[in-house]
Amino acid sequence: MHIDILTLFPEMIEGVFNTSILKKAQDKNSFSYQLVNFRDYTTNKHHKVDDYPYGGGAGMVLAPQPIFDAMEAITKKRPSKPRVLLMCPQGERYTQKKAEELSREEHLIIICGHYEGYDERIREHLVTDEISIGDYVLTGGELGAMVVVDSIVRLLPDVLGNSESAPMDSFSSGLLEHPHYTRPADFRGMRVPDVLLSGDHAKIDAWRHRESLKRTLQRRKDLLNNYPLSEEDRLILKEIMDDK
Amino acid sequence: MHIDILTLFPEMIEGVFNTSILKKAQDKNSFSYQLVNFRDYTTNKHHKVDDYPYGGGAGMVLAPQPIFDAMEAITKKRPSKPRVLLMCPQGERYTQKKAEELSREEHLIIICGHYEGYDERIREHLVTDEISIGDYVLTGGELGAMVVVDSIVRLLPDVLGNSESAPMDSFSSGLLEHPHYTRPADFRGMRVPDVLLSGDHAKIDAWRHRESLKRTLQRRKDLLNNYPLSEEDRLILKEIMDDK
Repeated sequence: MHIDILTLFPEMIEGVFNTSILKKAQDKNSFSYQLVNFRDYTTNKHHKVDDYPYGGGAGMVLAPQPIFDAMEAITKKRPSKPRVLLMCPQGERYTQKKAEELSREEHLIIICGHYEGYDERIREHLVTDEISIGDYVLTGGELGAMVVVDSIVRLLPDVLGNSESAPMDSFSSGLLEHPHYTRPADFRGMRVPDVLLSGDHAKIDAWRHRESLKRTLQRRKDLLNNYPLSEEDRLILKEIMDDK
Repeated sequence: MHIDILTLFPEMIEGVFNTSILKKAQDKNSFSYQLVNFRDYTTNKHHKVDDYPYGGGAGMVLAPQPIFDAMEAITKKRPSKPRVLLMCPQGERYTQKKAEELSREEHLIIICGHYEGYDERIREHLVTDEISIGDYVLTGGELGAMVVVDSIVRLLPDVLGNSESAPMDSFSSGLLEHPHYTRPADFRGMRVPDVLLSGDHAKIDAWRHRESLKRTLQRRKDLLNNYPLSEEDRLILKEIMDDK
């Protein structure tokens, strides 16, 4: 997969993309990227990328010209039309399902603004997906773009080894994860639950499933609506609720 | 505000923190940070930070010892007990409200895992807030930590100038933003709506408010439940719905 990122702050992104899994994915040729500073595409004398909003108001708005020209330079070299993501608070809320969908694309372009709003013509004529990573305000789109790229690249074939993929992924199962423990069994008087030391795997599995249900009930009840609860799960949940 | 970040990948974070608003906040002494590689605190020969999970299963678990020792080294120098954030998919979903709450703290510590799960004793005995930036799986906690720091630091006094703060912040108003336009009024045949060129500010404000309501209705209906709709807002929404 190739990803082009349009940004005014390429140096924010380099360090992240050349570390850890994203670096490994490049070494394996599963992933390549290009950082495009769209300031390089401005046609005005002072290389200004933004301008005052029509109709007045505080803040600046990213002008269409540099983005349109940068996009053309990227896409004219490519045979197929890529998905174009715009990072913005007004976008669709990003989810693991969207990450899975995007991980099946060959080529993505991600547009990052910084402080400013975007001229609406960018949204209307260039963008296929507006994406928000959450209900909070960030200084620019770069962190969102990195979140999206990280979540996608780790899903590409051959990128993750088994030991890296398993633990956090139980999130995609629909329940929150059960507690984990590792050595020592007694750390400064804080002990690992006996069941995990018992060697009884049926009991361990049952304990873990119960803890997953409990944590999901306590913290993210909304997830239970989409989880296929068995009859036994319902009994366990009832028990947990009666306990309190 | 001072923020300590416990991470195995400090080089992921440097580039982001030394750019843009986060750099500016440091120059103004509003914000300082320290990246603590907790691998430096391991007491075992091979500097291993993780180990196999008790009870079996794939994946590794971050051991308690390096994190407890790193935390002690950080906190013993400080007079007050800091909030300690753990980045994890099981955490409370991060919101702008949480960013505002955290921006009133003097000192924060953020713990980032990478691939692995966390030994439960870290959660139970060290952490005050477990935080998830969204329902997607990332390789590590570093991107989440940077998101949290960016969202907090931009709220600190004197960090943002007016031109930087206004545009994206209308998100905190409870509605999604209306469209923005800047020059040229006609870009390759794509024209700015006439009302924005009219100079009639009452009309412009009404148009913008209507577009905000429309966008929120179409994309994030859930936000309307918490927005104090006026009688007129309700009429506008009805009109928009009848239009379709």
